[in-house]
Amino acid sequence: MLELRLVQAASLKNVLEALSVLDLSSEVNFEFSGTGFELQAMDTSGAALVALLLRADAFNHYLCDRDLSMGLNLADMANVFRCANNDDILTIKVDGCPDTVMFVFESPKVGEISYFDLHFVDINRMPCEIPEIPESEYQAIVRMPSAKFMRICKKLSSVGDREDRDTVASISVDKERVDFFTSGKAGTSTIFCTVGKPKEPTLIEEPTLIEMKEKVSLSFDLRYVNSFSKMCTQSDQQVTISLSPELPVLFEYKITEMGRIRYYVAPRIKLQNEVDGMQN
Amino acid sequence: MLELRLVQAASLKNVLEALSVLDLSSEVNFEFSGTGFELQAMDTSGAALVALLLRADAFNHYLCDRDLSMGLNLADMANVFRCANNDDILTIKVDGCPDTVMFVFESPKVGEISYFDLHFVDINRMPCEIPEIPESEYQAIVRMPSAKFMRICKKLSSVGDREDRDTVASISVDKERVDFFTSGKAGTSTIFCTVGKPKEPTLIEEPTLIEMKEKVSLSFDLRYVNSFSKMCTQSDQQVTISLSPELPVLFEYKITEMGRIRYYVAPRIKLQNEVDGMQN
Amino acid sequence: MLELRLVQAASLKNVLEALSVLDLSSEVNFEFSGTGFELQAMDTSGAALVALLLRADAFNHYLCDRDLSMGLNLADMANVFRCANNDDILTIKVDGCPDTVMFVFESPKVGEISYFDLHFVDINRMPCEIPEIPESEYQAIVRMPSAKFMRICKKLSSVGDREDRDTVASISVDKERVDFFTSGKAGTSTIFCTVGKPKEPTLIEEPTLIEMKEKVSLSFDLRYVNSFSKMCTQSDQQVTISLSPELPVLFEYKITEMGRIRYYVAPRIKLQNEVDGMQN
Repeated sequence: MLELRLVQAASLKNVLEALSVLDLSSEVNFEFSGTGFELQAMDTSGAALVALLLRADAFNHYLCDRDLSMGLNLADMANVFRCANNDDILTIKVDGCPDTVMFVFESPKVGEISYFDLHFVDINRMPCEIPEIPESEYQAIVRMPSAKFMRICKKLSSVGDREDRDTVASISVDKERVDFFTSGKAGTSTIFCTVGKPKEPTLIEEPTLIEMKEKVSLSFDLRYVNSFSKMCTQSDQQVTISLSPELPVLFEYKITEMGRIRYYVAPRIKLQNEVDGMQN
Repeated sequence: MLELRLVQAASLKNVLEALSVLDLSSEVNFEFSGTGFELQAMDTSGAALVALLLRADAFNHYLCDRDLSMGLNLADMANVFRCANNDDILTIKVDGCPDTVMFVFESPKVGEISYFDLHFVDINRMPCEIPEIPESEYQAIVRMPSAKFMRICKKLSSVGDREDRDTVASISVDKERVDFFTSGKAGTSTIFCTVGKPKEPTLIEEPTLIEMKEKVSLSFDLRYVNSFSKMCTQSDQQVTISLSPELPVLFEYKITEMGRIRYYVAPRIKLQNEVDGMQN
Repeated sequence: MLELRLVQAASLKNVLEALSVLDLSSEVNFEFSGTGFELQAMDTSGAALVALLLRADAFNHYLCDRDLSMGLNLADMANVFRCANNDDILTIKVDGCPDTVMFVFESPKVGEISYFDLHFVDINRMPCEIPEIPESEYQAIVRMPSAKFMRICKKLSSVGDREDRDTVASISVDKERVDFFTSGKAGTSTIFCTVGKPKEPTLIEEPTLIEMKEKVSLSFDLRYVNSFSKMCTQSDQQVTISLSPELPVLFEYKITEMGRIRYYVAPRIKLQNEVDGMQN
């Protein structure tokens, strides 16, 4: 039996709204356990992975007496939450009925209770095979406001060919500066972000912070990061970018007092003929 | 001869804007008489009917010396009104010219007068055959803010298959509660609206009121109600839903001090094989 | 060598945004000289011409040591400027590299510098052949707020067939009134704009001013003017319409303290059979 209760539906509504900007497979697995629940889903192209974690203590009531894997259509779920008022009291329940989850939104202020029964998606049809991603040590970690990161991605896209799914972007992290770069049909785009100087803390709005063991420079497909940069769960959100030469780039958003969303993007290895092409 | 004058074009502009969310036949008949004018139009599918009534006293000047039936293209008319300023002085005239109506919008403040001559639509080409709908006694009447009704329709739609034109919704009215229900591909959606209790009048925002002779439960195609629920002529608008077992469901909006918009939807009779299907 | 500097990128950003509503050939020639720069581009249909002029003194720093013709893709350039903050410091540079222009946007407040290198468009591929348009004396000059002009164009379009690329509009200027007229499938639209009377200067908002040697009446394709009327570089913008029987109609917007945008539309000569058709 599963029973979750949130006195403000808004927080979960915002998380689902944020996920909906990503180009995810529509059918995803929610994994419930005693400590909270996780959702892992591949980008439709298979080169990026999103991992959502919400902790049990993020809920006002959380009861899960055995591990439960629940296939759901993410778009249907987002549709249901889109109708909710921010201050609805939300209950999520899996009980007698073996293949249905019930979402109950109570709005006592307007005298309204709404019940949504969503069918499970048959587990055999799930497009699974999601790789295990171990916790890792990274060579460099960059932290900046997500609004700043979104603006930078927009600048990178502005010279890229929007039709070209192969536009590559790169991030280079040094002690005092993060550089973003891309090259497209129209030309090139380079953005330097300098860290806030310790002695002039008030001079920089939207500061960039860098923790670094050694310089790292990684390339990846711009289009993955582009959609991720548009995610927003709250207004003062920060994004953390973790980089190591051998690993997928990790973009992470904390969800205040609830959990986090991680987004892993496979690094792009330059093929020899691409390198040759660039030298010509 | 016909001559109407409104010192604030806004009120008629809002009515036309409201009608434009409905999927009506584009060519409609306006019926002018000494007491006001009416417009009746079928939904393009033929299963819903809208009936607008504006009273003569809604106008600052109203002269109609003989009954006049005027076929007009509703979309063209809405285009013309969309250009008007809210405080334009509007004159509608049919005079010498037998197949044209003139709309004059005067904006003395900006030194501008605009004349629009719209051709009548040939009456022989009108897709008429609109059924007479008699005034009826209803078994149950529900009244709620139209914003609340729109939200409920959105909730019903959220589990329906948007592509499926056959999604059925139902309303059940009891003494203290109205229930809305639909079932779609993704699952089911049920909304309970409780009436404001007489002893706690201030506790419920957006109260639902019920007048009832006996319990009624009716089904109809969700898509008709869905578009109607988006209509809005003013911010504090109320919708009245009237139901009787043998009759079309009637949704009605009052237009303050001008008239009303009625929307009739044919009830859906469950076929025996549908009932059988539901029992399996 | 070319080097321009603007301490507020917003002003050039607004000009590019304004041009983007026009249906221009995407590849255009910028002509830089010691006194400023010009851009001339044909409408894709070849019947309208836009001519932008920005004076050297509009820039905080302007260095151009020899005349320079620079083919650029206007859409790419607009994409780049769309990412800029309004108070970015902008530098435009053509230096060592012979076929690239560099746009640098500095945002010291957020610790960010962005470099965009845009490739020149090969001059041989330019769809040029832009006619010389001499400065002319006009028979009548009309001046009105651009918001008013946009509203009038919307009124003209409301009866025109949007699909019909041949809808003709006409302007007639008399001493105290400008009339706009069009005729479409749905009917006709006529707008009278009276000039502000000298004795009642405060009574007319959005005044229309007329300077006239003799009455002029000209026709042209509505669709050209329609897109131009949506241009907006600043909120209190005025449009000046200059008319003479033998000349293209000239629509001009001043860009405060920077220069101007001119838009020339070929007059439409009524063919004899059109005139005949109107008389029937």
